[in-house]
Amino acid sequence: MRPQVLIIGCGFGGLEAARALASADVDITVVDKTNHHLFQPLLYQVATAGLSAPSIAAPIRHLFRRQRNVTTLLGEVVAIDAAGQTVTLKDGAQLRWDHLIVAAGATHSYFGRDEWAEFAPGLKTLQDAFEIRRRVLLAFEAAEREDDPARRAALLQFVVVGGGPTGVELAGTFAEIARHTLPGEFRRIDPRQARVLLVEGSPRVLQSMPEALSQRAREQLNALGVEVKLGARVTGIDAEGLDITTAAGAERLHSRCVVWAAGVAASPLGRALADATGCTLDRAGRVVVEPDLSLKGFPAIRVIGDLAAAQSHAPGREPRPVPGVSPGAKQMGRHAAANIRRALAGQPALPFRYRDYGNLATIGRNSAVVDLGTPLGPWRFSGYPAWLFWLFAHVYFLIGFRNRFVVLLDWAWAYWTHDRHARVVSEASPGRDVTA
Amino acid sequence: MRPQVLIIGCGFGGLEAARALASADVDITVVDKTNHHLFQPLLYQVATAGLSAPSIAAPIRHLFRRQRNVTTLLGEVVAIDAAGQTVTLKDGAQLRWDHLIVAAGATHSYFGRDEWAEFAPGLKTLQDAFEIRRRVLLAFEAAEREDDPARRAALLQFVVVGGGPTGVELAGTFAEIARHTLPGEFRRIDPRQARVLLVEGSPRVLQSMPEALSQRAREQLNALGVEVKLGARVTGIDAEGLDITTAAGAERLHSRCVVWAAGVAASPLGRALADATGCTLDRAGRVVVEPDLSLKGFPAIRVIGDLAAAQSHAPGREPRPVPGVSPGAKQMGRHAAANIRRALAGQPALPFRYRDYGNLATIGRNSAVVDLGTPLGPWRFSGYPAWLFWLFAHVYFLIGFRNRFVVLLDWAWAYWTHDRHARVVSEASPGRDVTA
Repeated sequence: MRPQVLIIGCGFGGLEAARALASADVDITVVDKTNHHLFQPLLYQVATAGLSAPSIAAPIRHLFRRQRNVTTLLGEVVAIDAAGQTVTLKDGAQLRWDHLIVAAGATHSYFGRDEWAEFAPGLKTLQDAFEIRRRVLLAFEAAEREDDPARRAALLQFVVVGGGPTGVELAGTFAEIARHTLPGEFRRIDPRQARVLLVEGSPRVLQSMPEALSQRAREQLNALGVEVKLGARVTGIDAEGLDITTAAGAERLHSRCVVWAAGVAASPLGRALADATGCTLDRAGRVVVEPDLSLKGFPAIRVIGDLAAAQSHAPGREPRPVPGVSPGAKQMGRHAAANIRRALAGQPALPFRYRDYGNLATIGRNSAVVDLGTPLGPWRFSGYPAWLFWLFAHVYFLIGFRNRFVVLLDWAWAYWTHDRHARVVSEASPGRDVTA
Repeated sequence: MRPQVLIIGCGFGGLEAARALASADVDITVVDKTNHHLFQPLLYQVATAGLSAPSIAAPIRHLFRRQRNVTTLLGEVVAIDAAGQTVTLKDGAQLRWDHLIVAAGATHSYFGRDEWAEFAPGLKTLQDAFEIRRRVLLAFEAAEREDDPARRAALLQFVVVGGGPTGVELAGTFAEIARHTLPGEFRRIDPRQARVLLVEGSPRVLQSMPEALSQRAREQLNALGVEVKLGARVTGIDAEGLDITTAAGAERLHSRCVVWAAGVAASPLGRALADATGCTLDRAGRVVVEPDLSLKGFPAIRVIGDLAAAQSHAPGREPRPVPGVSPGAKQMGRHAAANIRRALAGQPALPFRYRDYGNLATIGRNSAVVDLGTPLGPWRFSGYPAWLFWLFAHVYFLIGFRNRFVVLLDWAWAYWTHDRHARVVSEASPGRDVTA
């Protein structure tokens, strides 16, 4: 029997690891809670009705149809037995492994205030995206039917908490919807009067970017019509809005549509791994891994992607943390696969080195910031050229020719018409779900 | 103040009525429970993962953005006051009307066995389509993980109840998925071993078609791999399958995926109308209307589409029932609008006459039947030419250039690759919803 490689999670890391083992003499089983690989960088476009779900979600087994050494299983891993080399699925089934790659990713964190989740959904899954889309579209619908000016204003106030890439993208696109997509479709309200607020705790947006680009991003947000509140701490969220504290004091923001893009927490599988192996978790619940991405004392278990607190080990340099971005997850996936091949060949594992090709974030129509590392030093630019660069980079990395083509088509359509085609809410009543 | 026209429901009938009043000197309010107009003839393609929801669902207010005399409201009408000329929405809001068009459509009927709904979803809304898609795709996923041969066979047995157009389309497409889309993607099961059964109570499928075309349809179903059981009465449905009775006796069909395409019942608004006006309902709950589509004693209330039990009044011929198809609803919509214009001009209402241009149904890849009325007599054909005719007719009637183009693209892709791109299930756990 060939060595059994079990991969938990088919995000960027898990997918890349399985692909990198295509020609290896192993049997690979990929287990995921959902049936699809999600292109998360464009998830905000589903949440803002620009793309339909199938454009950014490909069935996992379809992606592996030609890779005959992969078996895809739909299931949720709830326990890991490190000594017995098995995992247990939610329905009790057990899967055996010789090599385990845990790539279960992250979810959002409300910093211990889980009661906020109900009033401020985060954006990690397609379900989340549909819920946000539903809330945004139904807020405009309710405003059209609301006679009371104060309640109408609250319905037309949209608040995004968190000024990272997702928060910036969401706020910029909300503003675009209000200013360009919806005007002309309502008879009683003017959607252009909607206010979009971006609330960030630190002194600048896009903290992972150089300061000058954060400043440019803020200017572009303002130009799109987003009010940016920096240094603002959220102290409460309820059905009617949220409370924030800034240098100017406490403030109440009335809103029926608050989106949470502030905190990330590792998958609960990190805790299961710690129970099984005694490994250390960092503050965000991520698994502290060895330089080769394995767990201390368990060389056959590797943790990659957002679930790993990994360091990059470049020769002659201090180790530094790998950022939680998709290139990091992909590189870890390939590295874990390479170390499995080395282990099978009796060679020692190599430490992981992250290659940082740069950082980019989009803000809205014609607006983005790009920070590229080149052999000649950093290359930074913003505005329209950055937006074009962002667009083609994302289409290039989208999986599958068809998706790429459809996304480009959708974007071209949206660009010229300002229309957003995926504005479908399947049921009017809250609590019911929304369609893609 | 201009005359107020209130239209309840924005299916084919309501949409057409509002459009036909574009140049009339009236204010129109369109109220719908959802935010979108649904192109129902292609809903089965969402249920079978061929199309994503936004391709066949357009936001109602987007469709009316340039028709300035229309106000779109998202809301559910729960009561009608015929004398006071108002309707009440679910949240208590009241809307006044001078002319009322009720186009609330139909839902599925389990013939008094509503407990079957849980085990055999019908197909009327996008939610229904997502639920069916979820069940079909998850049945294959569960089969891949099932070791017991009997349970595996039950998971791979799909039963469609009802041999009308929807049932035939669903069964044909299920067979196509099993035979052409999924093979190669599974490692433990062979999807081609899936059985697709079509259960019909009468002696033939597509009863509204001439008998020869029913026969052709049945042959094409068989060629696609569908087993057709005619003269089969369903006596019970539960979580594990269904019981049927045929001339050969009682039979148990094990299945974890049963779809209901058998019965249609009018919207509950028919009952509300009967309470308000004393109008008569037929056995299916449809409102019996006057020759001009109004209600007896209430000339300003008109009922159209699937909610109306209407007759066609051609000069010199016996009145005959209008079939429950989209051309019927559209023609009634235009007729109701014309009669409103006549009423405003002081002219008497005209009786409705249905023009029957024919009937067509698709069965699956390259398979369809067409029955056209021409001045030279009926023109009937089937197979590939009928399928091409069906395809272009449906794309032609799809609303909005973008949708048409995207649907054609999706179909071309699916035709050449056998892939179905919308195979996304957002959560593995049953009970959670599915994405478009």
